[in-house]
Amino acid sequence: MAKKLSEIAALVGGMVLGGADPEIAGVTNIEDAGPLDITFAVPPHLDKAAASNAAAVIVPGDIAAYPKPAIRVENPRIAFTKVLELFTPPTVVPRGVHPSAVIGDGVRLGANVAVMAHAVIADNAQIGDNTVLYPHTYVGENAHIGGDCLLYPGVTVYARCSLGERAIIHSGTVIGSDGFGFVTIEGRHHKVPQVGNVVIEDDVEIGANVTIDRATTGSTVVKRGTKIDNLVHLAHNVVIGENCFLVAFTGIAGSTKVGNNVIFAGQSGAVGHITIGDNCIFAGKAGATGDVPSNSFYAGFPARPHKEWLRAEAALHRLPDLVKKVQALEKKLAALEKRGN
Amino acid sequence: MAKKLSEIAALVGGMVLGGADPEIAGVTNIEDAGPLDITFAVPPHLDKAAASNAAAVIVPGDIAAYPKPAIRVENPRIAFTKVLELFTPPTVVPRGVHPSAVIGDGVRLGANVAVMAHAVIADNAQIGDNTVLYPHTYVGENAHIGGDCLLYPGVTVYARCSLGERAIIHSGTVIGSDGFGFVTIEGRHHKVPQVGNVVIEDDVEIGANVTIDRATTGSTVVKRGTKIDNLVHLAHNVVIGENCFLVAFTGIAGSTKVGNNVIFAGQSGAVGHITIGDNCIFAGKAGATGDVPSNSFYAGFPARPHKEWLRAEAALHRLPDLVKKVQALEKKLAALEKRGN
Amino acid sequence: MAKKLSEIAALVGGMVLGGADPEIAGVTNIEDAGPLDITFAVPPHLDKAAASNAAAVIVPGDIAAYPKPAIRVENPRIAFTKVLELFTPPTVVPRGVHPSAVIGDGVRLGANVAVMAHAVIADNAQIGDNTVLYPHTYVGENAHIGGDCLLYPGVTVYARCSLGERAIIHSGTVIGSDGFGFVTIEGRHHKVPQVGNVVIEDDVEIGANVTIDRATTGSTVVKRGTKIDNLVHLAHNVVIGENCFLVAFTGIAGSTKVGNNVIFAGQSGAVGHITIGDNCIFAGKAGATGDVPSNSFYAGFPARPHKEWLRAEAALHRLPDLVKKVQALEKKLAALEKRGN
Repeated sequence: MAKKLSEIAALVGGMVLGGADPEIAGVTNIEDAGPLDITFAVPPHLDKAAASNAAAVIVPGDIAAYPKPAIRVENPRIAFTKVLELFTPPTVVPRGVHPSAVIGDGVRLGANVAVMAHAVIADNAQIGDNTVLYPHTYVGENAHIGGDCLLYPGVTVYARCSLGERAIIHSGTVIGSDGFGFVTIEGRHHKVPQVGNVVIEDDVEIGANVTIDRATTGSTVVKRGTKIDNLVHLAHNVVIGENCFLVAFTGIAGSTKVGNNVIFAGQSGAVGHITIGDNCIFAGKAGATGDVPSNSFYAGFPARPHKEWLRAEAALHRLPDLVKKVQALEKKLAALEKRGN
Repeated sequence: MAKKLSEIAALVGGMVLGGADPEIAGVTNIEDAGPLDITFAVPPHLDKAAASNAAAVIVPGDIAAYPKPAIRVENPRIAFTKVLELFTPPTVVPRGVHPSAVIGDGVRLGANVAVMAHAVIADNAQIGDNTVLYPHTYVGENAHIGGDCLLYPGVTVYARCSLGERAIIHSGTVIGSDGFGFVTIEGRHHKVPQVGNVVIEDDVEIGANVTIDRATTGSTVVKRGTKIDNLVHLAHNVVIGENCFLVAFTGIAGSTKVGNNVIFAGQSGAVGHITIGDNCIFAGKAGATGDVPSNSFYAGFPARPHKEWLRAEAALHRLPDLVKKVQALEKKLAALEKRGN
Repeated sequence: MAKKLSEIAALVGGMVLGGADPEIAGVTNIEDAGPLDITFAVPPHLDKAAASNAAAVIVPGDIAAYPKPAIRVENPRIAFTKVLELFTPPTVVPRGVHPSAVIGDGVRLGANVAVMAHAVIADNAQIGDNTVLYPHTYVGENAHIGGDCLLYPGVTVYARCSLGERAIIHSGTVIGSDGFGFVTIEGRHHKVPQVGNVVIEDDVEIGANVTIDRATTGSTVVKRGTKIDNLVHLAHNVVIGENCFLVAFTGIAGSTKVGNNVIFAGQSGAVGHITIGDNCIFAGKAGATGDVPSNSFYAGFPARPHKEWLRAEAALHRLPDLVKKVQALEKKLAALEKRGN
């Protein structure tokens, strides 16, 4: 497939800079771009892209002139995404049930599903239309998978859990393992039955090797539009709001409720039984240890407002100097006192 | 199934409060409880439970009167667990070996096992009575799985590892991968053969996507009654004592020995080759960097006694003020010195 | 198999200490060694090894005499590794394709491969000579696995990714899941297609339950000789240099470039879009938040030179005292000022 630069400009709602209208046959990053590729650049990468082998570059709207054929557009990243979609042929997966797949009794398969080699669907589970189960996926008893979902190889969904429409779940992810609940009697830990489930709403993407535990009773919930990175852990009865980002290694302890549009950066987390408002951001390695009001930007452990944390961190590294200053003050003061006597 | 409230009270060793004796048909959390359900509440949730739709509430022993039918009991959480068990029908798994399972030579299967679809048991492995291997489980050569174990879908047990009785292992967990051992010669890393194994004693539960490495020589050991949350990592030759709790993202480095009844909270860990006594608690994100005596409560990194850590953290956030105070002192002292001269 | 101590000494380039030349039939750690085993010891474990049941001990070159038969050698750890290799019979895996394995169209299998039960190889993938795919492994469309590789049970390699020669990949590891890339338009997150791949060079070992995301465009790369521990996460477009060590729970965010011979200790990480030079070491729980020059030893978050971090940490724990000192100074100064007036 090839497109004229002007056709691509029309697709992304941009304006062609320079007189040329080259043919574009692919899209990639600056380093890998060849003479038939388009790439994108924002400051400080504009010069690097201009010097690259790319045929053309998508640039921000405030660029008046550019040494290469270019498309000027308000948000180059969104435009680049559209061009990526244009040049990425959709993965075609053969439909139907592979003979090595094992399908339980009472399973309802939607239209146009793909159930690939060695997948296992337990009794009474439901799979929505157009959903693809890659090899080695497991869907437990009475689980419900929505339509247009993608479950990559080795995904496990335990019994009675449910995924909404258009879920994308990457390999190795486990949905519905038992919550970590025990009562300790005379020093021995007895399992609390975990009889709830996990409910994943529509348009959620979950990375690889994530774990989401089923609720003790009721549901652990991930609301619509939330995106979860690899190796994240959500404990039993956690509720994650809509359109959140949970970056790799985020851990949310039991029963904590997280609002909408919240971002947890890498290796951050929250203790159990707290409430986190909407639009919060937690910096990398932050750990929330109490309720957090909406619109907070927190850092550190225990997590505090980011500005306060920055100030404390900066002061910490001036602390050895401060110790010396105080020692000097003590000496001078002693001298003064001596003189005074 | 339904039970009278008084029957449930007898089961949990509690006393009915109020004159009514309603029928109870289920058990769940306060929010989800309907007019046939029992729930439990401890402060500060007693009012919320009283206002809920629940038919009855399990409450602590110091509650004299309650606006709803209630069971008064010393430990509501333990009572709730018993009621959960009462109302949770045991999962019935068909027994036998699924025709798609692959069983090696010399495998010994106990009585009443379930080996489900696409499970693989390698040569000379042993599976104890009543044990359930869910789909996609793998048990390596000469491995030994005890009786009454549950291995959820996708669990992998490498060759020669052993699990005791009543182990519960959640999906994606890997037991017996090679320890991370290399000798570096002229800048290149050469693998040290990892010829030991992993020994999991009785009554251990392990969450999802956990990794426990085999020992270089000898055994990596998890002793009886210990409970491990999701995404925990135990390195080669680690020994974890009895009845410990290792919460999500805990990482214990090679050859470290942990005593009995130790708690590692989320995202905590320990460096290698240290010894941690009995009854220790490590707060979230703590990292032990040296031996820790029994009965310690540690926090921070490097981990220190919790009180000391709290004091230092509190002081850290007063540090910007302290800097200002010292500057003020310096000014005043300079003025005094000037005057004195 | 048994060897004379003198034969083992010749193999490891060492010298026998003491007059005896016992038969050695095995090799293990000090605690587990029996009267036919050899073990190794370096300070402070020399006395413990001398008192053990071992037949003989490998000791450092500066030991002149030892109470047990011993081999004196410059680097006991390297010698021990050689002896482990001597006594570890190579695992013999039956070659060929198990009848339950599913092999796609156009797959090219090298000579002498083992494709074990329930493995799945998708269309047009290539598997090099002598490579072993354990049960439940998945190799995606057009993926390329080199020769002499070991993929343990449950490894997933997504489409178009490639592994070099002699890769060892432990169970549950996922190579090529989509990068975590979204553009947010009016509060909703839209997936950026991840059309790149992952390239693992020669002689790389990767632990269990690791995740390595495919690049948005281009490749996520792990260069030759690098060793990765369990539960590590590498984001899209990350480049890891040669001969690095990434210890458990290390997380490297998108597009970060790491040099050669770099060590990330446990629970450490780096933010995205930074460059880390050669020969750097990051202490446990460190988090790099900006470019790091070659030969740095960093700790803390934000990561700083280790010495500076140590000094600040030490000062932090003297801070409560400092607060008291400043209060005392303030009092004394006030008294002096009063007197002065």
